[in-house]
Amino acid sequence: MKTHNVNWETLRSQAQQLLMSLDVNEQEALTIADNLVDADLCGVESHGVSRMAIYMKRISSGVVEKKAREIIREEHPSSIAWDGCNSMGMITGTNAMKRCIEKAKETGCCFVAVNHSNHYGMASYYVKMGADAGMVSFSGTNAPPNIAPWGSSKAYVGTNPLAIAVPTHGEPMLLDMAPSVVAMGKVILAAKLGKTIPEGWAQTADGKPTTDPKEGMKGTVLPIGGPKGYGLSLFMDVLCGILSDAEYGPHLNNMWHDFENPQNVGHVFCCIDISKFIDIGTFKDRMMQMVQELKALPKNPGVSEIFIPGEIEQRRRMERKKNGIELADVVFNELKSLCEQYGTQFILEGEMK
Amino acid sequence: MKTHNVNWETLRSQAQQLLMSLDVNEQEALTIADNLVDADLCGVESHGVSRMAIYMKRISSGVVEKKAREIIREEHPSSIAWDGCNSMGMITGTNAMKRCIEKAKETGCCFVAVNHSNHYGMASYYVKMGADAGMVSFSGTNAPPNIAPWGSSKAYVGTNPLAIAVPTHGEPMLLDMAPSVVAMGKVILAAKLGKTIPEGWAQTADGKPTTDPKEGMKGTVLPIGGPKGYGLSLFMDVLCGILSDAEYGPHLNNMWHDFENPQNVGHVFCCIDISKFIDIGTFKDRMMQMVQELKALPKNPGVSEIFIPGEIEQRRRMERKKNGIELADVVFNELKSLCEQYGTQFILEGEMK
Repeated sequence: MKTHNVNWETLRSQAQQLLMSLDVNEQEALTIADNLVDADLCGVESHGVSRMAIYMKRISSGVVEKKAREIIREEHPSSIAWDGCNSMGMITGTNAMKRCIEKAKETGCCFVAVNHSNHYGMASYYVKMGADAGMVSFSGTNAPPNIAPWGSSKAYVGTNPLAIAVPTHGEPMLLDMAPSVVAMGKVILAAKLGKTIPEGWAQTADGKPTTDPKEGMKGTVLPIGGPKGYGLSLFMDVLCGILSDAEYGPHLNNMWHDFENPQNVGHVFCCIDISKFIDIGTFKDRMMQMVQELKALPKNPGVSEIFIPGEIEQRRRMERKKNGIELADVVFNELKSLCEQYGTQFILEGEMK
Repeated sequence: MKTHNVNWETLRSQAQQLLMSLDVNEQEALTIADNLVDADLCGVESHGVSRMAIYMKRISSGVVEKKAREIIREEHPSSIAWDGCNSMGMITGTNAMKRCIEKAKETGCCFVAVNHSNHYGMASYYVKMGADAGMVSFSGTNAPPNIAPWGSSKAYVGTNPLAIAVPTHGEPMLLDMAPSVVAMGKVILAAKLGKTIPEGWAQTADGKPTTDPKEGMKGTVLPIGGPKGYGLSLFMDVLCGILSDAEYGPHLNNMWHDFENPQNVGHVFCCIDISKFIDIGTFKDRMMQMVQELKALPKNPGVSEIFIPGEIEQRRRMERKKNGIELADVVFNELKSLCEQYGTQFILEGEMK
C-alpha cells in the first residue's frame, strides 16, 4: 500500500482548517480534528481522517449542524439528560464527558445520556479524558444495525462499542471494544484477497455458518461469545437509544446514504471519582502491582509480551507522534481534493513510500 | 440423573432453617436461602442450594461471619465505599443494592463498591432488584483466578461475571454473563463423557489450543472474543478488587480450600434512575417495541424462537415455581446429611425420578 509519512500536528491542522472552511469555529474544529488524528495515531484508521470526507459532506449538506449546541433536558446532582441538538458527535461527546467528570467530582458518580447526536468517533477518546481526571470512566454509543440477534440472520443492533478506562502511574488502562468477533472490514478484505475466513466470524444471509467471505458479506458478522456479545450490544442500544430518548437499532438513520434525516444517535458517559473510594495514589500503586504481575506471567508459544488493555494503541501513539503517521495514498489524495473543493490551503507534505 | 421433585418454597424454608441452626438470624437466613433457590429456579444450579454445604462449612468454621455487619467507609451523594465486614455475600450484596437504589432515586445515579465480602451468589439477583425499582442496574464481582491474560497460559483473573438489567412492561430484560466461552464445568463434563471439545473453549497448561477436555482441565478456559473477554474480566477485577480496596486476581483466597483466611472478595453495584432521563412508562413502551421487533425477526435454521436476554431463565423460574424443582439426588442427600449434622428437621419431600 502506498503511504505518505505525515506529521501528526500538521495533519491535525489540516483537518481543523478544512472544518473551519465550513464555518465550524476554531476551537471546535480543533476538537474534532484532534479526535480523528488520535485514531490515526492509535492505529484505528477506520475512525481517523479517512472520515473527513463524509463528515464534511454531512456538515455542508446541513444534515449535521455546524454550530454546536446543547440543551440540558433534565439535570440532577449525578445525572444529565443531554440533547445534542444534532451537533457533531465529537463536540457533544467532549462537552458531555467534561460535565460528567465535574459532576462526579462533586457527588462521587455521574451518568450522562445523550440523544440527537451523530457519530462521535473513537469511544476511547472520551474515557481517556475521564481517566486523566482520576476517574473510572465509561462510554458507549449506538450505531446502525449490523449484528443479528442470537438465533436470527437479520441485523438489528450495531457493533455498538463500549469503552472503559482507569488511570495508572503511566498511561490509562483502557478497553475499547466492539461486540463482534471481527469488523466486517476484515471479511471484505478476505474476499478481496481470495482467502477463506475462520468459522465464527460471520454467518450467511440465511443464518448459516460460513467460511466463505463473499457469503459472509451478504450476511452479518457474529458477536463475541454468541448471545453474550449480542446481549452486550443490545444493552448498549437500550442505554444509548431507549434511555436517552434517541433512536435505536434499525430506526437509526444511515450516516453514509441519508443526507435528509439526522441520525439521532445516542451516547452514554459515566464517571466514578476514584478518590471517593480509595486514595488515588494507593489506587495507582495497586494498578502498578497488577500490571507488573500480568507482565511477568508465562507467555504462550509465539507470544513476545503480555499486553495491558490499551497498551498497544498507546505505543503506536508515541511511535507515530515521533516518527510520523503513514497516511494511505487514497486518504492523502482525498484530503487534497477536499482542500481544492472547499478552497483550503493544502499544507500536508509527506514523502511517498 | 436421579432427581427429586421439590416445592421451591419448601426448599427455601429448608435452606433457611439450616442457616438458622448456625445462628444466622431469621431474616438474613431467608435472604440467603431466597438467593440460592432463585438460582435453582432459573436453572443456574451451580449457584443454587448445591452451595449450602460449603457455605455452612465456612460459617461454622468462623471464616465467614454469621452476624452480618457493615461499615460505611465513605459516603457521598452518589457513592458509597462499603466494607462488608466479612459477612455472607448475599446479605452484603442485598443491603448494598438497596442503598444504591435509594441514593440513585435521590441524585440520578449511584455507585457502590464493596470490599471484605464473600461469594455473593448469582449477580442477576441484585440487578433484578434494581430493575424492579425502575433502575438501569448493574453489578459485578470478582472471583479467584481461572482465566489467563490474553497471550498467557497462567490463570490470573476470575470468570468475573457482570450483570445488567432494565425494567419492561413484563419481566426485566437481564444479561448476566461470565467472560469465558464456557464454564470449566462443561470441559469437565466432556472429559467424563469421553467427548472432544470445540476449539476455542480451553487451552492446555502450555497455552496451546486443544480439543482434548483432559488437557483443557489442566489448562484454562478461554475468554469470549479473546482479548475482549479477558479485558472485561480484568476491568471487573479493577473495579471489584482495586477500587473497592478488596483483593484481586491471584490474591483472592480460595472459598473451597482455605478455612483460615477470609476471601476478601469485592463487588460493585450501580443504579441509574430511569425516570430522571425519560418517563418510565415511555421507557417501557419503547422496550416493548424493541422486544416485539426482535421477536418478529427471521429465525435461523433450527431456531424456534428469538429470545430476549433473561427470558429463558424467567420462563424456567415460572415453570419451576408451578411444577417444582428437579433437585439432583446428590444435592437432596447432601441437604439431608446437613440436617442430621446440624440437628435441623429435614422437611424436604419429593418423589424420586
